Amino acid sequence: MNVANKKAVVLLSGGLDSATVLALARSQGFECHSLAVEYGQRHAAELTAAARIATALGAQSHRVVRVDLGAIGGSALTDHAIAVPVASTADAPVAPGIPVTYVPARNTVLLALAMAHAEVLGAAHLFIGVNAVDYSGYPDCRPEFIARFQELARLATRRGVAGEELSVHAPLQQLAKVDIIRLGTSLGVDYSMTVSCYQADAAGGACGHCDSCRIRAAGFAAAGVPDPTRYRSGSRQNAFR
Amino acid sequence: MNVANKKAVVLLSGGLDSATVLALARSQGFECHSLAVEYGQRHAAELTAAARIATALGAQSHRVVRVDLGAIGGSALTDHAIAVPVASTADAPVAPGIPVTYVPARNTVLLALAMAHAEVLGAAHLFIGVNAVDYSGYPDCRPEFIARFQELARLATRRGVAGEELSVHAPLQQLAKVDIIRLGTSLGVDYSMTVSCYQADAAGGACGHCDSCRIRAAGFAAAGVPDPTRYRSGSRQNAFR
Repeated sequence: MNVANKKAVVLLSGGLDSATVLALARSQGFECHSLAVEYGQRHAAELTAAARIATALGAQSHRVVRVDLGAIGGSALTDHAIAVPVASTADAPVAPGIPVTYVPARNTVLLALAMAHAEVLGAAHLFIGVNAVDYSGYPDCRPEFIARFQELARLATRRGVAGEELSVHAPLQQLAKVDIIRLGTSLGVDYSMTVSCYQADAAGGACGHCDSCRIRAAGFAAAGVPDPTRYRSGSRQNAFR
Repeated sequence: MNVANKKAVVLLSGGLDSATVLALARSQGFECHSLAVEYGQRHAAELTAAARIATALGAQSHRVVRVDLGAIGGSALTDHAIAVPVASTADAPVAPGIPVTYVPARNTVLLALAMAHAEVLGAAHLFIGVNAVDYSGYPDCRPEFIARFQELARLATRRGVAGEELSVHAPLQQLAKVDIIRLGTSLGVDYSMTVSCYQADAAGGACGHCDSCRIRAAGFAAAGVPDPTRYRSGSRQNAFR
């Protein structure tokens, strides 16, 4: 790991996990440049949240890159012909164990774009908020995927050719949602700014039904931290309180 | 390599190399689904060419995905503040040996998008037209990069989780431009449809000055094949004839 170069690109979705990652990287002295990727996800309210979080948590710069994964489809998050499941992920799998909210190759695309941004900035570090515990069964959230991407970065970039490593940090990898919420709370993250819902409304109001809402609500309950999530009217938020 | 599943995603840029790859894959019996990526390159005329080539060479489907690499910048091909060099690449390097036309992490982004498309289609093969000979010094054209990406694909995808390999083919990897042109000519590729120029005009007219034009023209001359390139009026095409 390059300790002299503290410049870092932090993937910021507007959700709870990546906000925690940004706060953690800042607390470790990294100069953070956040990158939000608009990939045609339904929860576009996350992007507005990402920009606010970047400012609140002291990112040096914030940038948005658009990639039209909707042109490829295959996920309930980018393809409006596929419904977001509102019960357990186990109810509507695309393949055994992998839910319809899985966006094909999403983390590879996100890390590739972050790597491009790091090249341009001369940053030696990438941060991504994946975690392998509450990961909903997505293959590209596993630790071995992250490790392999770091190896790829050595070969794929100008920095790598020059013998300078690009370190890929996934500090939430082994944490459950409850631990992430405790960590972020200790770092002063205001989670009311974050949007996790797979089908949030334009103002960021959460549905209360989808997997992401359920995992989030359970995390706040387990952490013993008041849940600041804004549920939209008519949602089933009371089930989680 | 999965020989039962002959479904393939072929990255098609509209240039000479990827057209040759599509013709080769078709001649080998692959069911080809071409994918063009609009990444903010200056040579948008390539995209029109890609759609025509897909039809002419018998692709089963053709799709365009947009990704705004211009928001990241750092390359003469996506950032209009950086001039495309018109002499040798050695004249204006960003870093030793790597020219300003290098788009940071481009091939990682292209392969990630192709991998996403392959996941949705259930394709077991990816084709990309990189070559390590006339590769202009781009790190992500090297054989070790392609090999590493294939390993990543095993971990990154639903197919990989299911134990089904995604083979990444880069059949031009060891070929010089002259060999590529001979191969494509033997397969009946009409190179007048392809656009290689880094700064082609809207109709695909080539500048005749940039690296890509120079390598292409020298390839046709060395192959002893008449150069069908349409140079725009006022360009220096006569220097190559």
